[in-house]
Amino acid sequence: MSRFQSFDDAASPAQGTTRIPLLRGELARRGLDGFIVPRADEHQSEYVPANAERLSWLTGFTGSAGTAVVLADRAALVVDGRYTLQAAGQVDTGLIEIVPLADKSAEAWTEANLGQGGVLGYDPWLHTAKGVEALAKAVARAGGRLVPTEGNPVDAIWTDRPPGPRAPVTIRSPELAGESAEAKLARVREKLAKERVQALVLSDPHNLAWTFNLRGADVAHTPLALGYAVVPADGRPTLFLDPGKLTNETGDVLGALADLAPPDALAGALAQLGAAGAKVRFDQGTAASALIEQLRKAGGNPDNGSDPITLLKAVKNGAEIAGARAAHLRDGAAVTRFLHWVDREGPGGGVSEIAAAEALERFRAETGALRDVSFPTISGSGPNGAIVHYRVTRATDRNLMPGELYLCDSGAQYEDGTTDITRTVAIGEPSAEMRDRFTRVLKGHIAIATALFPKGSSGAQLDAFARRPLWQIGLDFDHGTGHGVGAYLSVHEGPQRISKLGHTALEPGMILSNEPGYYKTGAYGIRIENLILVEPREVGGGERPMLGFETLTLAPIDRRLIETALLSAAEITWLDAYHARVQHKLSPLLDEATRGWLGNATRPIG
Amino acid sequence: MSRFQSFDDAASPAQGTTRIPLLRGELARRGLDGFIVPRADEHQSEYVPANAERLSWLTGFTGSAGTAVVLADRAALVVDGRYTLQAAGQVDTGLIEIVPLADKSAEAWTEANLGQGGVLGYDPWLHTAKGVEALAKAVARAGGRLVPTEGNPVDAIWTDRPPGPRAPVTIRSPELAGESAEAKLARVREKLAKERVQALVLSDPHNLAWTFNLRGADVAHTPLALGYAVVPADGRPTLFLDPGKLTNETGDVLGALADLAPPDALAGALAQLGAAGAKVRFDQGTAASALIEQLRKAGGNPDNGSDPITLLKAVKNGAEIAGARAAHLRDGAAVTRFLHWVDREGPGGGVSEIAAAEALERFRAETGALRDVSFPTISGSGPNGAIVHYRVTRATDRNLMPGELYLCDSGAQYEDGTTDITRTVAIGEPSAEMRDRFTRVLKGHIAIATALFPKGSSGAQLDAFARRPLWQIGLDFDHGTGHGVGAYLSVHEGPQRISKLGHTALEPGMILSNEPGYYKTGAYGIRIENLILVEPREVGGGERPMLGFETLTLAPIDRRLIETALLSAAEITWLDAYHARVQHKLSPLLDEATRGWLGNATRPIG
Repeated sequence: MSRFQSFDDAASPAQGTTRIPLLRGELARRGLDGFIVPRADEHQSEYVPANAERLSWLTGFTGSAGTAVVLADRAALVVDGRYTLQAAGQVDTGLIEIVPLADKSAEAWTEANLGQGGVLGYDPWLHTAKGVEALAKAVARAGGRLVPTEGNPVDAIWTDRPPGPRAPVTIRSPELAGESAEAKLARVREKLAKERVQALVLSDPHNLAWTFNLRGADVAHTPLALGYAVVPADGRPTLFLDPGKLTNETGDVLGALADLAPPDALAGALAQLGAAGAKVRFDQGTAASALIEQLRKAGGNPDNGSDPITLLKAVKNGAEIAGARAAHLRDGAAVTRFLHWVDREGPGGGVSEIAAAEALERFRAETGALRDVSFPTISGSGPNGAIVHYRVTRATDRNLMPGELYLCDSGAQYEDGTTDITRTVAIGEPSAEMRDRFTRVLKGHIAIATALFPKGSSGAQLDAFARRPLWQIGLDFDHGTGHGVGAYLSVHEGPQRISKLGHTALEPGMILSNEPGYYKTGAYGIRIENLILVEPREVGGGERPMLGFETLTLAPIDRRLIETALLSAAEITWLDAYHARVQHKLSPLLDEATRGWLGNATRPIG
Repeated sequence: MSRFQSFDDAASPAQGTTRIPLLRGELARRGLDGFIVPRADEHQSEYVPANAERLSWLTGFTGSAGTAVVLADRAALVVDGRYTLQAAGQVDTGLIEIVPLADKSAEAWTEANLGQGGVLGYDPWLHTAKGVEALAKAVARAGGRLVPTEGNPVDAIWTDRPPGPRAPVTIRSPELAGESAEAKLARVREKLAKERVQALVLSDPHNLAWTFNLRGADVAHTPLALGYAVVPADGRPTLFLDPGKLTNETGDVLGALADLAPPDALAGALAQLGAAGAKVRFDQGTAASALIEQLRKAGGNPDNGSDPITLLKAVKNGAEIAGARAAHLRDGAAVTRFLHWVDREGPGGGVSEIAAAEALERFRAETGALRDVSFPTISGSGPNGAIVHYRVTRATDRNLMPGELYLCDSGAQYEDGTTDITRTVAIGEPSAEMRDRFTRVLKGHIAIATALFPKGSSGAQLDAFARRPLWQIGLDFDHGTGHGVGAYLSVHEGPQRISKLGHTALEPGMILSNEPGYYKTGAYGIRIENLILVEPREVGGGERPMLGFETLTLAPIDRRLIETALLSAAEITWLDAYHARVQHKLSPLLDEATRGWLGNATRPIG
């Protein structure tokens, strides 16, 4: 039993069989030759509310990324490499062609298939300005025309479409937030003045949550309240939130900070800014094209750039850091109880991936503080562990088996912090190759954990530290080494990251993951993930202001998978010190049996 | 005595005292309120011919980078951090304000000083389109106007200006070039067709030299023949070279490849392309704004991008690689004779930096193959070694002294290859700190030399490998780890580089430097530089196509500066193997005394 995750695949290919023709009828009525259906909501969020799951409702495809293009005589679903197989199983391929993104983007497929004079519709609330621009170019090259729709044609045929989410908004306590919304707004206004814009449109609900110290429950796994705000460089902000989400109390708190208005009123506010000829900053990653057009049509000057709040939010304050430490202590104890349970139950061969994910959620729930999992647990045994973004369903479920590896990547949302941890453990006896690969991944993990680097360095400069031990024997992994993590917010937060594309300078207070891996297709997957906090470092005799990482995550790393001979003395020192800290910090929180098991699991290897 | 380098500072501040007023007179005659004087020629080359040394003639400043802006009532010389002190000593600071680039760019200084309605002139042959754009914006913000000049106003007052260079063009032998110009042109045309441009204007003389297998001697240290070419996607190229540089023989060889025309004829060719409405690629890094305007005014469509030849040239073919190996063998023997000489003569305290640079050039000249040094030798003892771009003059010269370090960064141009090597040696007894820092720099050097990395990786991903041993104790160095190097061409060649800004994928056949360092201001400098060749690597049991480096440079690394306890077993193995190779390869080329010295200098440390 899981409260926060489902392992069922409710969707079926038959959905598309009936719904694609319905949509074509609707398009014909509107004089459209085609329509594009992205997997997106009005805020480009990672998790979207049920009423925005148009792609899955229309086609049966439940992946987290993908775009359908429906024309009168053909249709395509463009998905990335993670989802080509899944999509082929989930949609009616007689009606919908599966197009791998590596072969053709949705834009390129449209260009090749729309036809001269074709009119393609798009919902301007579900695309950014950049997205519309790329689409417009492709449609123009095809000799067609791109037009925004009034309302979404899918909604017109989706008769039992759920209502928009209306989860109650909660106010974050000053103890957890660490900075008042007033102070945050003052810092935001400073940025706006510096960048010479008259106002900022807050379209990213994560930034809304941070700025106003509010949280919600409108989508799964991330405590967002969907809504908007307009923050002028001078004067009072307006917060656009469904009044149904507010109680008298929360309304009073927020009303002290900002004018409150329903989301519908945003159009009027933009028209007013437009009429004044204002230069208004939109966040290019999350602002819907429709918003920008509302300002432009009213005579305003849209400035598509980055929302300055994104960087402010990334740097955690003292209260948020204290919260993160407390969350990781609690979470580490729950994960340790889970690892003990896996060690006891797994080798018998009777534990399924789903049962394991459920057990882990149960251990976390038993802390009494679990608000949600921070993403669907990746619970992969044997070959399933090699699928980087694996999500177990009843159809793919298999048992943990002796002689195999079990990879579990999971996280929790507690009010004081968001966690994300991956442990890979041996079920029974691992092979020498597994031990070699695991140890190399561990060496990469330690290279990040122990890195010192000058202030101003970016994650791009550190990324290869995590890969070198694999590179030296001709191996690698196909994902970044680390992503940013929020404070009781998204488990995937920018702009900080450790990746060759991570050019943002790391700053003290940023939280990131440290998660190198190795994946042998069809055999096993390895990933070792801890969250790390950027902190200033004093180096005796040093000349430069340096930064380093504090490892926040507390849970043992499977000693049975470590080939000690491959580790340097410094690496052994790090591992033993980490394990000593894990044992010392977690033991007081554990029952006697688990404490005994942990003592053994954290014995020095040096 | 040096044939290829001067250690005199011929310029004097008095130059500006008389010439700035002369220039102001000329500007007034032309109705200009100011004029901008960059240190540039028509090709944005690193080394410019004597007739393009306008900045030094006008102001006395001899640095390799800087920009003067001369207004009616004030003038500035904007220079980067390397040159602020030098500039202050070289120019009349009563007339010319020295502006550090870190404080203000030439554009920003112009914006602040030009004044409303001011008319600033620029020579469109000495600025790229991008440069003009930035300048135009600054002038517009000042409320002024930017106008191109007809001819350069400095030339009008520079009565004894030397004529343009007319060194004879030589044709590269097929054995050294390794690919015919016809084959190269076919590959260039393929790129143009793929990028859908009708022609390419070759404005970079390095690319001209590579494509047509020609070399020249128009500037110091790099065997360039200044000129242009137009390569159409279909049809015969035209080579624009001063006919005075060609003999009947060289004219015949080049005439078989291309129509030959004097540089003056380029304007007509661009007008013709313009009239045909052609889309023409210009290299944004080297194409003068004047060229682009000629095409645009004639109705053409300038496409400012990168010259595809730059990447083709960076990947050396088999003959170029064989040439590089031969050049490094020869050069290594000369450098080893020099290191032996320094070891014998230095500790007595009677060797000056200039005498050392002259001795090194002499050892190289004695190979009988030296065509030029590849850049002015950086010969820095003690505190001078800490100045990264140090160039010794009579004024700064000092002797190598016991207890100090001596850093020598130098290179040679041989017909078969270009070299670049830095060695840092102890004169007398080094301190424990010097040994610690040297060993850390060596660890960084070895980390690059031994790196394996997946095909597609860039130098940006490797750069931090060279820094980590310094970072771990709070130190760093303020330059890239490596730059590309040409094949008997520039010692600084793009696009390949090892630096946080080096985003070009490394490809087999590229040559780069590997030169981490450490600089203690006022005390000593350390740099260890070898050239390395990117090569494919087979890794047993590996899954990815991998690349690695072959070290081309052959010369001992000072064992007396190595703290063995700081090295890992793998690092010791690399060093001992490198030294064994150096000893094995160079010994047959050395006299007995040097051979004996080298045997001792390359003893295993493990």
